[in-house]
This record gives sequence, structure tokens and C-alpha cells, in this order.
Amino acid sequence: MPAVAGPEIERLIQLLARLPGLGPRSARRAALHLIKKRELLMAPLTAALETAMEKIEVCRTCGNIDTHNPCTVCTDPRRDPSIIVVVADVADLWALERANAVNGRYHVLGGTLSPLDGVGPQDLSIDQLVSRAHDPQVKELILALNATVDGQTTAHYITELLRDSAVKVTKLAHGVPVGGELDYLDEGTLSAAIKQRTLF
Amino acid sequence: MPAVAGPEIERLIQLLARLPGLGPRSARRAALHLIKKRELLMAPLTAALETAMEKIEVCRTCGNIDTHNPCTVCTDPRRDPSIIVVVADVADLWALERANAVNGRYHVLGGTLSPLDGVGPQDLSIDQLVSRAHDPQVKELILALNATVDGQTTAHYITELLRDSAVKVTKLAHGVPVGGELDYLDEGTLSAAIKQRTLF
Repeated sequence: MPAVAGPEIERLIQLLARLPGLGPRSARRAALHLIKKRELLMAPLTAALETAMEKIEVCRTCGNIDTHNPCTVCTDPRRDPSIIVVVADVADLWALERANAVNGRYHVLGGTLSPLDGVGPQDLSIDQLVSRAHDPQVKELILALNATVDGQTTAHYITELLRDSAVKVTKLAHGVPVGGELDYLDEGTLSAAIKQRTLF
Repeated sequence: MPAVAGPEIERLIQLLARLPGLGPRSARRAALHLIKKRELLMAPLTAALETAMEKIEVCRTCGNIDTHNPCTVCTDPRRDPSIIVVVADVADLWALERANAVNGRYHVLGGTLSPLDGVGPQDLSIDQLVSRAHDPQVKELILALNATVDGQTTAHYITELLRDSAVKVTKLAHGVPVGGELDYLDEGTLSAAIKQRTLF
């Protein structure tokens, strides 16, 4: 775009375009929207980002992100300390929390093993997980990893590492997604759903 | 979502979700992306927003937004001062500049007349436009307004107001969009394209 609006606006558009979900065109719309809603949106968003810059940290125990360290989840006394849910990413932790699926604590690996992309065990927080798993109050590790090759490779690797420990290692059930239609599902999911069928 | 990540992150997500093009889910992804790319993206975006908050103004001449007032377009000596392109919104101005379609100056109305939504002439910068149009160096007003009922109502209203002035009032051509396929076009566009046909 020729310089109609000054380099400052161009820079704002370029940075917004780097957010996931926004392309160059929607970043322009977003920038214009921000400028129009200067007091109602741009000012509070600027302040929220300043606060985030200042306060948000990675939890030294579990790898969650929060404004407290250790994070709210790790320090919540109502959570069951005997369960650690292992996730690849903070987004997965948030998804499980939204589902209100489990009342344990978490461990964020920071990714999954991926030999093709050069991600090895030393790139993930697997050592920290193993030492947390050896804490006598931990009874169960739920591996909530993606049902992809990399996710399952990582799950196997962790299971092997903890083979001789007292902790129980479990994984998520495979099956038909709630609300899912059978004729849209792949064969692997269907056969897993049949194999792991439960009593009505 | 239960409070896993502290109110500061929640607030950031809520504000991001108010940007056009981002919903609650993509706002969470965007927030997480910002937090992960703290130095590479969150810091520069925060700075860009701070600059925008501080510097961006609405041009008192044409209604464009810029860090200068009057704006870069209004003060550019290479632009033809005899042409004023009338647009409803700054986004339209940007679109015309990207197309590099015209080398005149602009006038941003701030919307279109819309009796149903209660938008009357006093809500738009029509008075300012009329007084700019009476400047003797202005020869032509190009009404670059949407081809919608509201856009065309606004165009008619402005044309009537300037009926007795010396300025020439023109509007955008109707026709087949470049790259457009005839059998996807509506009848109105096709018949306009036939009526306004030009020599090969």
C-alpha cells in the first residue's frame, strides 16, 4: 500500500496480520476498528497488553502461563494432587479446563516429540515430568496428548520412562465425538469405538 | 472458562475477541500466540498500539486517519487538488489507494445516509464537503460510494446540494468486475455493463 496513513498505522497492521486467524485484509479492518474505537477498545487493549507484558509468566512447576508463579492451578488446594494431566500445549490445558473434565493438576510438555522436525526429549519438559511423577503423592498420570503420530509417540516414550515407577499411566479414550455422525468418521475411530464399547 | 489463567489473560482474550474477524476461540489462540511470542510479537504490538493511541488523529480537512493533521494525503503536493474523491469510510479510501486508482484528494463522509438507521445529513461531514467543493481550485467531485441503496441515496443527496455549483460531480462506472464471470453476475450489473459499453 502506498503511504497514505503513515508508517505507524502500517506497522500496526503488519503486527496484527501476524496474529493467527488474521490475514493482511482482516488486519487492516482490525486496525481501523481499533482506531475508530479508540477509547472503547484500543485503550483497554493497549492496557491489557501492557499488563500481560509485565505480569504473565510461565509456571515453573507445570509450564502453564499465568500471572502467578507457581500458577493458579498448581496452588489451588481444591485440586487433586494425586493426578497430573500431561498436555502438549497450554491451549490443550485451557480446552480441558473449559470442558471441566478433570480436577487434577497439569504438566505442559511444550510440544510433542517429532523426529522429523528435530524435536527430541531434551526440547520438552519431560525430565521435570518424570521427577514430578516420582513424588509419592502422585498416583496417576493422564496422557492427554493429540491422537496423532507425534502425540502417540510422545505418550509411548513417557510410558516407557515410567514403566518401573509406582505411578499409573493412563490415556484418553478413543471413540465417537459427542454429537458426531458415524458416516463422517474414519475407520480407525469407528473400530476403536467398537473395541472400547461400554455397557448402556 | 474457569479461572485457570488469571483475570488478566481473560481480559486480553475478551478484548481480542472484539476485533472484527476474531471470535472467542480465535481470540484465545491469538492471546496464546502473543504470550508465546512475547518479545517478537507482543512487545512490538504493545508499542505500536501505544504509538497509535498517542499519535493517530482524524484529519480535520478530509476525515482520513493519520499521525499527521492535516493528513499525508491532504498535504501531498503531488496530488491533484482539483479532484476530491468522496468515500463513506476510511477503509474505502485505503482500498482506492491500494488500487492506485486516482491521484486526487479525499473526503471521508463517516458513513452513508440511512433513514432507517436514523443517519441523517447532520451525522455525516456533508457540510464540510460542500464548503470544500466551493473552493475555486476544486473542479471535480468523484462520488466513490457503495452501489447500495444507502450509498446511492447519499450520492443523490450530495449531487442535489451541488446542483448550482461550478463543480462537476461524477460517480464510479458500473460494470463487470475485472476477472468476473458473466453467469455469476446479477441482472442489474449486466444491463449496466451493456448500457455503458465502451469501444474496444
